[in-house]
Amino acid sequence: MGMTMTQKILAKHAGLESVTAGQLIEANVDLTLANDITGPVAIREMEKAGFDKVFDNTKIALVMDHFAPNKDIKSAEQCLECREFSKKYNIVNFFDVGAMGIEHALLPEKGLTAPGELIIGADSHTCTYGALGAFSTGVGSTDLAAGMATGKAWFKVPSAIKFVLTGKLSPWVSGKDVILHIIGKIGVDGALYKSMEFVGEGAHALSMDDRFTICNMAIEAGAKNGIFPVDDKTMNYIKGRVNREVTAFEADADAEYEQTIEIDLSALRPTIACPHLPENTKTIDDLGHIEVQQSVIGSCTNGRIDDMRVAAEILKGRKVNPNVRTIIIPATQEVYLQCIEEGLTKIFIQAGAIVSTPTCGPCLGGHMGILAHGEKAVSTTNRNFVGRMGHITSEIYLASPAVAAASAVAGYICAPDDLK
Amino acid sequence: MGMTMTQKILAKHAGLESVTAGQLIEANVDLTLANDITGPVAIREMEKAGFDKVFDNTKIALVMDHFAPNKDIKSAEQCLECREFSKKYNIVNFFDVGAMGIEHALLPEKGLTAPGELIIGADSHTCTYGALGAFSTGVGSTDLAAGMATGKAWFKVPSAIKFVLTGKLSPWVSGKDVILHIIGKIGVDGALYKSMEFVGEGAHALSMDDRFTICNMAIEAGAKNGIFPVDDKTMNYIKGRVNREVTAFEADADAEYEQTIEIDLSALRPTIACPHLPENTKTIDDLGHIEVQQSVIGSCTNGRIDDMRVAAEILKGRKVNPNVRTIIIPATQEVYLQCIEEGLTKIFIQAGAIVSTPTCGPCLGGHMGILAHGEKAVSTTNRNFVGRMGHITSEIYLASPAVAAASAVAGYICAPDDLK
Repeated sequence: MGMTMTQKILAKHAGLESVTAGQLIEANVDLTLANDITGPVAIREMEKAGFDKVFDNTKIALVMDHFAPNKDIKSAEQCLECREFSKKYNIVNFFDVGAMGIEHALLPEKGLTAPGELIIGADSHTCTYGALGAFSTGVGSTDLAAGMATGKAWFKVPSAIKFVLTGKLSPWVSGKDVILHIIGKIGVDGALYKSMEFVGEGAHALSMDDRFTICNMAIEAGAKNGIFPVDDKTMNYIKGRVNREVTAFEADADAEYEQTIEIDLSALRPTIACPHLPENTKTIDDLGHIEVQQSVIGSCTNGRIDDMRVAAEILKGRKVNPNVRTIIIPATQEVYLQCIEEGLTKIFIQAGAIVSTPTCGPCLGGHMGILAHGEKAVSTTNRNFVGRMGHITSEIYLASPAVAAASAVAGYICAPDDLK
Repeated sequence: MGMTMTQKILAKHAGLESVTAGQLIEANVDLTLANDITGPVAIREMEKAGFDKVFDNTKIALVMDHFAPNKDIKSAEQCLECREFSKKYNIVNFFDVGAMGIEHALLPEKGLTAPGELIIGADSHTCTYGALGAFSTGVGSTDLAAGMATGKAWFKVPSAIKFVLTGKLSPWVSGKDVILHIIGKIGVDGALYKSMEFVGEGAHALSMDDRFTICNMAIEAGAKNGIFPVDDKTMNYIKGRVNREVTAFEADADAEYEQTIEIDLSALRPTIACPHLPENTKTIDDLGHIEVQQSVIGSCTNGRIDDMRVAAEILKGRKVNPNVRTIIIPATQEVYLQCIEEGLTKIFIQAGAIVSTPTCGPCLGGHMGILAHGEKAVSTTNRNFVGRMGHITSEIYLASPAVAAASAVAGYICAPDDLK
């Protein structure tokens, strides 16, 4: 029986000819990732278990992004712990304030993730790198501790759902709408412990940044991972970033899928996930009138240059509604600089938005835009659970950068075409 | 007996021919200011006292800057309270996320403070506007509440110290060094409840941004206010910002001063205030080797365009030391945009610094750069009290933007001339 893309990557890293869904394997990892929240836990677990060295000081990434630049003493202490660990073990890929960015935007940008590789990270949205044709998934801090020390991790080989994408997206419809549509369709546990494999001409038509957004939110459908086939766009993206040899894995023709779901991209409309679950989706046409007090454009889901360009296109020559705090957060220093060079930042400031230094910030209720009681936000982030961005009576509507930008102008959630 | 500059402004606002030091007066205020920390307290006091209207909805400024963009739920609630108050009383000068900046940089920029005016603010550094030849001082939230309701405030007329400035500053020496030198000389209570009046050809030689920095820190010598005479530079600064008529008050020839102190600006060296008081000053020559883990360039003291330009001049083509988190915070949206237009922001990012959206942030241990135990920071802010920027064992060295930028590169506190 044939293997899926994911299964092939796992087999290769386990040193096996083939694997099947449900099989337990031990596999070599190409990279481990932790951040300023999960890093300290993993570090302590690693040292508690008696390990006094790491498997490879070039294959461990530590990114200070969640509560950095430090929001309080506790977060300062956590970053300090990661900093001291990195010095002790000579960790090459320690990303501190100034060299940083949001982990899942930063690692691909720095060429630390590549097609065919296996990456584990102590963060749910580690699944992002599937956009490059890699297997990547979130693990707990204890598993990460073992991974940092041994370079290995245990997995139960996942079964898969095949998403056959056809057609092309309409203007102002993006990868965010695709993944929100899918989560709305299958639910937040619709792909529990399964791979979401995206194929078809529609998949190839999507930009890399759209693919990152889609894989990023695979976890919001409960998936073990999301993955796209490697194509010219992938190879073009890694050009100049990845110098090592990479492998493009394709699913076998007779690979087994639990389910095949066809999505006609051209039929999709701007899609919004209403409080308090990513599966509570409505199209913009069915949403009704929802006023918002804050619009957030950024995060590991939608803080890349394509996202910034779309927001700027909408905000250009317009002013945000004075009732809407509009917070734009380029995901990395590179994106931040590119926004300046392309004139996007100027557009944002002139529109009355603010531009933050890269940070996860408001997405997880960290800092840089927390909501008061009863406030509503439209946000390009990935989770709209109760209290996620602040007070437990606040509400988050997940949307694309296009919708978040248009809503900032209108004062209520709308699509760009609804603006005068 | 003649009056000082300050006394003349107070007499005018009290409707009196003359006033003398020690006299209690009631004066009309031209502007009241509160921020996201002090605003809610003042609002509650005002309403508790039974007031149900404000004296003038165009003469009340509320600036969300200390913990904004909101760092947590509590700060979000505080901003919400200010926002609702502003809607209720139709407060014209409510500055929220997107229209904001650090209050003491923002108000002069927006033309809300002008020569000869009387401004009270529920924030210690309200004394900043003395740079424009205004009388401005910090008051408690209860006094501010009365001010917002009645447009009046009680004062004990201060006596004064005259600072006669001669000569011109050497390269890389700035207003920050002037005020640190003075505080080092007279102590943190050296001007307790007195006016610090800066005069002489040296005063006129100083840029407006240097004057803002000097007046900003008058409170750190315990002063009631700091003030500069109005000259062409003042009038040039307010051009296009202030449209109403202004009055330039000059001290009488026979004004009485408690003390006259002469400062030769050309003799000043880069000056640093060591932990844990602004009076603990040393020149860079006597400081010794102090390694730092963070450099902060910003705040109401040093977040203006001149400060940014100096920092950029030093960071251009250089990289910050990887052990130094370098956090640059333009004080207002206008400064932020100007930094982009002049190419300063690009220099900062390429040097490995980060650029934050305007906020008081780390200065008061708020957010955006808090220190862990044992960490040291060089900072252009105004206070280096125990635990001010984070952990109680952390240390703050107050310095100019030039020193903070050079130190970021070197990894230890130094002057620009010490860089290779």
